Amino acid sequence: MQETSLYPHVSVDCAIFGFDGEQLKILLITRTGESEEGRYSDMKLPGSVIYESENLDDAAYRVLYELTGIKNIYLQQFRSFGSPDRTKHPRDIVWLENAIHMKIGRIITVAYVALIKINQKLRGFADGYEAHWCNLSEIGQLAFDHNEVVEGALNYVRKKIEEDPTGMYELLPKKFTEAELRNLHEVIFGEKVDIRNFHKKFISLNYIIPLEEKQQNVAHRAARYYRFDKIIYNKSHR
Amino acid sequence: MQETSLYPHVSVDCAIFGFDGEQLKILLITRTGESEEGRYSDMKLPGSVIYESENLDDAAYRVLYELTGIKNIYLQQFRSFGSPDRTKHPRDIVWLENAIHMKIGRIITVAYVALIKINQKLRGFADGYEAHWCNLSEIGQLAFDHNEVVEGALNYVRKKIEEDPTGMYELLPKKFTEAELRNLHEVIFGEKVDIRNFHKKFISLNYIIPLEEKQQNVAHRAARYYRFDKIIYNKSHR
Repeated sequence: MQETSLYPHVSVDCAIFGFDGEQLKILLITRTGESEEGRYSDMKLPGSVIYESENLDDAAYRVLYELTGIKNIYLQQFRSFGSPDRTKHPRDIVWLENAIHMKIGRIITVAYVALIKINQKLRGFADGYEAHWCNLSEIGQLAFDHNEVVEGALNYVRKKIEEDPTGMYELLPKKFTEAELRNLHEVIFGEKVDIRNFHKKFISLNYIIPLEEKQQNVAHRAARYYRFDKIIYNKSHR
Repeated sequence: MQETSLYPHVSVDCAIFGFDGEQLKILLITRTGESEEGRYSDMKLPGSVIYESENLDDAAYRVLYELTGIKNIYLQQFRSFGSPDRTKHPRDIVWLENAIHMKIGRIITVAYVALIKINQKLRGFADGYEAHWCNLSEIGQLAFDHNEVVEGALNYVRKKIEEDPTGMYELLPKKFTEAELRNLHEVIFGEKVDIRNFHKKFISLNYIIPLEEKQQNVAHRAARYYRFDKIIYNKSHR
């Protein structure tokens, strides 16, 4: 038998997606530190090591709340990431040792995902961290293997939404326009939707309820608002 | 900040399901040890702690091979289990400390699942372990939280099969009878299937191909064999 791993660390990381009507957003934390090339600032997912006697789910909710102020959402564990190389970047090693106050071997992270409305107020409690909604298409190189975690989370979300489209409406405001739902489709699946076919489908969905209200103060023609009726959806999908 | 978890251990566990034509089976390892009440023998999932520089997936394949001789199958990571209580049973603590040769805090396990044909030869390489196919309905109390892991794996399998029934045919022999497929439905979903409705559905599936061959040496009327045609299935489900 080879030598076994004596002291791996275990963390949780949260991939929280939002949508602003045009862009798919991911909630990230700024990280600042010193590296050999000087002071730097980059981004990471909200995450941290678990406490000694804490459930994984409890840790995920705690860490998300501490770093972003977000609570009362549903976090779904979707995969653990445990490549021995995921914490090998010199910048990540230095940052971790400062954050955790000890030498780090490897860290296995248990990753969670959620789809939420972006109007929740962000507020961090941990010193020196700031939470931001970032455009998913512009995140660049994140800390550790967090690009891979985000990609895994997005694939998980795509599959979930293909099975059950109600996940889409977690991301939309309570009242939304047809164009917003179409944009959301496009940014989640990364491909253009045919406007005419989408419209045919859209008006055929009995659980999308048109409202009297229309957009206000817009340059283009004001679009109608709709809402998603979960009760009607559930009745026709059981 | 509370004290963080310094030394959790990380393991992998594999929930491997099989089917013998009548019963859903799970692959378990015998565990023997000494407890305060004397020598005991019970069962656990194939699993062990990961090595220091080993991917989670690699660890799962290695451990499964070492403990059961099974290789060349597809293991799907489905969830991590990390309750602080999952390794608190005195019997489990003593056993772990003997197996790992050190004091144990807590163990987070990354769980994998697979559906395989039960005709694979079982052969363990690790001393004192024996792998057995056990009837899922009769497994009783397993070590650690392995009953919970098995339950989670079964729920995962049910969802996967509802999305894509091809998983069923991973469990069946290459040629199978209608009754075997019906039994498999019943044991996976834990409910009786109406024979007549099932038959109607069964003969309507274009990807189930009747063979010329029938059962031999059976007391009842010999049933026809069928095979699953993955190419036809994929053509009609894209």
